[in-house]
Formats: sequence, C-alpha cells, structure tokens
Amino acid sequence: MAQAAQATIGDSEFDRDTAVTLRAPGVYDTDLSAGWTIISAVNGGYLLATLGRALADALPHPDPFTISAYYLTASQAGPATIRTETVRTGRTLSTGQASLYQQDAEGNEVERIRVLASYGDLDALPDDVRTTATPPEFPPVEHCFGPQDAPELRPLEGSSAITDRLWLKIDPATLGWALGAPTGKGEMRSWFGLADGRDADPLSLLLAVDALPPTAFEMGLKGWVPTVELTVHIRCRPAPGPLRVAITTRNLAGGFLEEDAEVWDSADRLVAQSRQLARARLS
Amino acid sequence: MAQAAQATIGDSEFDRDTAVTLRAPGVYDTDLSAGWTIISAVNGGYLLATLGRALADALPHPDPFTISAYYLTASQAGPATIRTETVRTGRTLSTGQASLYQQDAEGNEVERIRVLASYGDLDALPDDVRTTATPPEFPPVEHCFGPQDAPELRPLEGSSAITDRLWLKIDPATLGWALGAPTGKGEMRSWFGLADGRDADPLSLLLAVDALPPTAFEMGLKGWVPTVELTVHIRCRPAPGPLRVAITTRNLAGGFLEEDAEVWDSADRLVAQSRQLARARLS
Repeated sequence: MAQAAQATIGDSEFDRDTAVTLRAPGVYDTDLSAGWTIISAVNGGYLLATLGRALADALPHPDPFTISAYYLTASQAGPATIRTETVRTGRTLSTGQASLYQQDAEGNEVERIRVLASYGDLDALPDDVRTTATPPEFPPVEHCFGPQDAPELRPLEGSSAITDRLWLKIDPATLGWALGAPTGKGEMRSWFGLADGRDADPLSLLLAVDALPPTAFEMGLKGWVPTVELTVHIRCRPAPGPLRVAITTRNLAGGFLEEDAEVWDSADRLVAQSRQLARARLS
Repeated sequence: MAQAAQATIGDSEFDRDTAVTLRAPGVYDTDLSAGWTIISAVNGGYLLATLGRALADALPHPDPFTISAYYLTASQAGPATIRTETVRTGRTLSTGQASLYQQDAEGNEVERIRVLASYGDLDALPDDVRTTATPPEFPPVEHCFGPQDAPELRPLEGSSAITDRLWLKIDPATLGWALGAPTGKGEMRSWFGLADGRDADPLSLLLAVDALPPTAFEMGLKGWVPTVELTVHIRCRPAPGPLRVAITTRNLAGGFLEEDAEVWDSADRLVAQSRQLARARLS
C-alpha cells in the first residue's frame, strides 16, 4: 500500500464520496458517487457507510455499534436525500433510524434503503477482552491476488469502478471461481484497504464487510447476489494498516444465502462482525 | 415431550400469549403475558414473536425471512400497542416496520422495541439446498438436563416463569456454570421445545433463538445480559419434533458480546440463524 501521497481519514475519496450535507433538522443531502459501482449497481456497503455518516451527525454518539440495513430498491449514482429520526438517546447508546431516497424518472421519491442503528463511543469502552476468536489464517499479501493483478479477478464482466477504489488481495484458496474451478466452499478471504491508502475507521468498516466478491462464486453460482438485509456490529476502533476480511456462507438454500463477515485489524483484534441475507439464483 | 393432550400450532400457550388484535389499520393491541418473564424482564424472543405476528398480519406475505429488533427500554407484562408500517411490497418479499409501546406510570407512551423485517412465503421457496453446514453434535436428550431437573439450572435466582413454558434439555458440556465451574467457552446448546408440546413454526423460532441461558454464564459472568439488537433469519419451515439450538460467542470485549444462534429441526435442516449484540458486565 505504498503511496506517493497517502490519503487520511477525513481527506480521502471515501470521505468525499460519503459526505452528507445538513439541509434541515435530521435531513441530509448526498450525491452517490459512480466510483463505488459494479456495472450500474451501487455497492451496498458504500451506501451503508453514507447512511452511517448521516446518523453519526444526527445522533449524540459518534460510532455505529450495530446497524441493520434493509435494501428496498436498487440505488443509482446521483443525488439522494437521507432522512433521519432519533429514536432514543441514552447515556451510553443512542438509537436512530435513517432512510435514503432518490427520485425516479417521473420525479417521485423512492425509498432505497432503511436502517436502524445504535451508536455509542468506541473510545469510551473498557479495555476488557475475553475472546475465544482468533484471526483466520491468511497467506502473506505477496501470495494473494487482486483485480489489478488479473482481469479474471474483476468480480463481474464490464465496468467495475469500485475495484479501482479498493485494495484487495484475495487468498488464492478462495479464488477457484476465477479459474473456472470453484471449490464449492462458501468462503472468501481478502486483505482489504482503500486504494488511496486511507486507514480504516468505523464508517469504512461498513464498506469492508460488503466489498469482496460474493462467496456464491466459490459455490459455483454466477451473477448478482443482491442483499436483502445486512447487519454490522462494530466492536473496536481499527488500528492503522491493512484489514483482513473473512466471509463464510454455511447455508445456501431455497434461493437465499447468508454471508458472515469478520474483519480483523493489524493488531489482531476482531473489529467488526456482520451477517447479510442475500438472494441467490441457483444455476 | 410426551403429553396427555398435546397443544397444536394455533391452539397453545405460545399462540394465546402472542395474540394481537387489530384495532385500526396497521395498529394492534396485545397483552404481554407474565408467563414469559425472567424475574420481571419479559423475554426478548417472546417480544419479537409478538411483533412478528403483528407484521405477519399487516404484510401481504406470511413468514418472516429476516427480522431485526432494536431493544430500547425494558418491557413489562401487561397491555401494549403495536404500530406497523408497510414499507414496500414486492412479488416475493415485502418489508415492514413495527414498534411496540407501553404506558409508563404517568400514562405517557414509551417505545419498547422497534423492528424492521422482510417477509416472504417459505412454502414457495425452491427445494434447492447447497449447504456446507452440518448439525452440531448433541448428546441424546436423556443425557441432557433442564430447569425441571435441578434448581441450579434455573437461569437466575427468583421467579422465572418462562422456564415452565419451555422444554429445555441442555448439553451438559455447556453446564459448567450451573456447577460453579464455567468452562470459559462461549457455548450453549440445548434441545428446545414448548412445554405444552406445540410444534415449532416460524414465529416460535423467533423465541427459540433467545430462550437459552446466556453464553456469558459459561464465560464466567453472572447477571443480566440485555439485548441491544437481535436479527433472525428464518431459512426453512421447521419439521415437527424437537429443535436443537446451538449458541456461540466468539468475542466478549469492551462490555459487549455477540450471541450467534443456529436452530436445527428434526429433519437435520438449518431452519434459523440469528445474531444478537448484548451488553455484558465483566465481573
């Protein structure tokens, strides 16, 4: 991740593209960037981070501890409005709701996503750690491969602007799909960073959990795996340096699958856990 | 689970105690039963099932596919009002929101829980199953123990009405806490049913994921572990017969922990997955 001029938290592509502007109490304007799309679909983690930034402004606590998103209709690059509601404020946690809207061709407002979330202050948490989780084994970065290394690793044919914004180095053990030989296991693992070298923060973790190629590829499926629901728990402020993201799917059945993501930071701490329910079309 | 007269889906304690009555479009009255409390706290899974029943009535689809609950204030046995909103209706999924309110001593309405959910029709799903998950190993029922077998297995001192409504047979490997010797592992496993013999359905699965003693007990913690957020995915209609519920916690840190639950039916199918974020007080 050596960069001539490294971007920083607050001054980076990710920060500019998730920026929100207060228009009225609890109401924010934003402009969804075409830089975080796959074909024409806006990445769900990027959308969640944008909503998460609006809630961080609207609520009295700064950091998402848990956020649940229901994806209603497909977002498109361009202007959007976020409406927030403060549901409850407490001493250590506050809970809010937010919805993102865009206008359709007739000028009608269409709701794209609705989220519920509880926010707190990660820096105020005690240091006690009693965890049984250990980081998954990852090959060193130089033994992993990213979309910049081979065209087969671009997640879908056609334009995938998001791959230029991310620094992904995927574990070759989860790259069978790219060689036409999916392993059949519901696993995807990658080193993760932002291409401009910006370090991770709680908002960029909301992107990290939904930015890898879908596990469905390794289970032999092709095509789009649209998210129905995604919940992320942020457990700790991430240390500077690259993240490791490990995603597993245990159950692909009835046209749906879950994706469980764990995100580990450079200090070997489990900084985020997420689960999503997505639709899958069995081929 | 041999019963003189077995209760059935639709005619059981659980069905009566989660009943909702339409008062106005989208608005339901309910009466939270004292039968599903631990000390004075109403069980979070029972509350979720009651909200889930209201949404099943309000939405055009019958079954919760994914439901996310944010617990705001402590519910109490007694009257409550549920207000629902239909967020979006689609061909295979519809999305709704619901909140449960109770009155405080001054007669002010207080919001207890807010949920977002997407509903579908489990019976309309294709039969395709491509799963890598296998059921956890459970000892036979006769080698497991429930609250009826020993007073040490009542989850907390004092009245625990819910234990009389449930049929739990807990894996002794996860019962160290009851003998004063917690294993330190974040695991809890139990056979699960309703005491009156009613079989499981999607709504009772919402109870099953939050009805075991907390994994925190096996990690050496005592006392209450209040839920902040709970998301449940219902993946399949459960077959008749007892369920197996396996809960794991990988990360107890900073005063919070997650509980991941898997529910398996008698046909060895993974019928529900859930994750909750809860507060823990390290002792």
